[in-house]
Amino acid sequence: MQSFQELSKQFTEYFNIRHFPKEPATLYEADEYFLSLGGKRVRPVMCLMGNELFDEISKDAWPVAAAIELFHNFTLIHDDIMDKAPLRRNQPTVHAKYGESTALLSGDVMLIVAYDYLNKISTGYLHQVISLFNRTAKEVCEGQQLDMDFEKQETVKMDEYIRMIELKTSVLLAASLQLGAILGGASTNNQQHIYAFGRNLGIAFQIQDDYLDAYGDPAKFGKQPGGDIMANKKTFLMIKALESANPAQLKELKRLMRENPEDKVARVLSVFDDCGVKNWAAGLKEKYMNEAFEHLEEMAVVMVRKEPLRQLAQFLVQREH
Amino acid sequence: MQSFQELSKQFTEYFNIRHFPKEPATLYEADEYFLSLGGKRVRPVMCLMGNELFDEISKDAWPVAAAIELFHNFTLIHDDIMDKAPLRRNQPTVHAKYGESTALLSGDVMLIVAYDYLNKISTGYLHQVISLFNRTAKEVCEGQQLDMDFEKQETVKMDEYIRMIELKTSVLLAASLQLGAILGGASTNNQQHIYAFGRNLGIAFQIQDDYLDAYGDPAKFGKQPGGDIMANKKTFLMIKALESANPAQLKELKRLMRENPEDKVARVLSVFDDCGVKNWAAGLKEKYMNEAFEHLEEMAVVMVRKEPLRQLAQFLVQREH
Repeated sequence: MQSFQELSKQFTEYFNIRHFPKEPATLYEADEYFLSLGGKRVRPVMCLMGNELFDEISKDAWPVAAAIELFHNFTLIHDDIMDKAPLRRNQPTVHAKYGESTALLSGDVMLIVAYDYLNKISTGYLHQVISLFNRTAKEVCEGQQLDMDFEKQETVKMDEYIRMIELKTSVLLAASLQLGAILGGASTNNQQHIYAFGRNLGIAFQIQDDYLDAYGDPAKFGKQPGGDIMANKKTFLMIKALESANPAQLKELKRLMRENPEDKVARVLSVFDDCGVKNWAAGLKEKYMNEAFEHLEEMAVVMVRKEPLRQLAQFLVQREH
Repeated sequence: MQSFQELSKQFTEYFNIRHFPKEPATLYEADEYFLSLGGKRVRPVMCLMGNELFDEISKDAWPVAAAIELFHNFTLIHDDIMDKAPLRRNQPTVHAKYGESTALLSGDVMLIVAYDYLNKISTGYLHQVISLFNRTAKEVCEGQQLDMDFEKQETVKMDEYIRMIELKTSVLLAASLQLGAILGGASTNNQQHIYAFGRNLGIAFQIQDDYLDAYGDPAKFGKQPGGDIMANKKTFLMIKALESANPAQLKELKRLMRENPEDKVARVLSVFDDCGVKNWAAGLKEKYMNEAFEHLEEMAVVMVRKEPLRQLAQFLVQREH
């Protein structure tokens, strides 16, 4: 059993090759550029961990892990176009550097290359792997669409937001684990538990994300918190505040969102405090974590094999950056 | 053996179902809308024809044909974004009707659903089918990138243009036939011949396309010809004219392209005539058609089975619309 850090190092070595042809450079340079920006490679390593939970790492787990990482990067390239984001990992996004058309095409071709990696595995699990990969890929697109739809809506209900987060973030974490488990020969029951573990973990992960963007320590977080508040983003915290505020607090929140005063972040946080949003978020995160750990418990696998996943989960939801 | 028309009718019936979930409607309505605009369904029917060339139509040929048609429509949705095209088949394009972000995502999800259809086939041919499908899909993206690159270049050489057309148009026709042939149990040699038939046919098809846009009969063509000339598009005809014009003709062409006078189309066509471009194009088309038919001849299949493909090829390169 290897830790996230050990597997992450091995995956980085495996993945650190050229994935695209040289020509036409006007297309493929954009893909190689984006991959060179790096990332934590959480999803592919979760695939390897889901695999090692049941057996020694299968040779098929590596290309499936690569396919997952390429798929994830494809979604980032296209999301950045839709969000008109100038930066990703402190570097220019693909569309900012190469133009929107090339960004669109280089994303398309990255998705196709993801399927090239899936197609490397042996025949036995191919149908099952493509089937779960595809269902998840569609759900991620649905999550992105809902996210865009919510931006245009005046109010978003908490359960709608959670469903969006599930689609946009959780299902890919869950499927990464399950894809590894499938290749490890896991039973259907164990596959369901590891998927549910990932799905609940993903929601807790997003709660932490939203929390850090409001309350993060700038020194550890790497940037000034408050970005979501400045952009009036509907996060776990904001939706909860809007739902639980009294009429005066609600009026204040709406005024701050409309007028964008200089001290907006501090004053929105003060309303959050008055509504008890911070404690509520900590409690909700714990609820999803407990749910996740229950599924981990219920897997018919000796406890010691589960340890790396437990540690990863703790890290992901307690991280400060 | 069935004709293109007969198979086209059958494919239309098979394909005329809902391919996407109902929700979120903000995403999937765009996909269903675009498919409802119809089209000639040339590529999927070529897959069926490539299959029937060797045996009765296999049940796997239908989902592969559907995957090809979905892939083709995915490229159209994304190409329309890149080309900022307002209309497709006389109706608003997806981005014109639903916005660019939804068009981008609905294209992405259509590509994923294409792989759902590939994943329906039996295990035996799955690796081979995905492999050819993917190689072709990447080539089509490369062709689109080259097409965009060429727009920014002052001059494009004929062999560069032909390579671009091969990637953007020909390889998908060729691969559609070969995918059908694979599922029909064709030998490697026969697969290579049917691919080469499709590749040459595709170039001849594009020559006819460029020809019609300059010389088409408006009554049959369905629109006023001259669109490519008005837009200074580098077509077979324009590249040939620029290559073979004498200094005075070249000066006239460049002036017309720069100044866009009211009678631009007529005057460019007059230079084309002086350079003998029309006859040259007819000759080039014949050359590729002959090449295509030679590969059809060389296939180890009784002649009568090849007849529908021969007729389709004749139709595609002689069509007047």
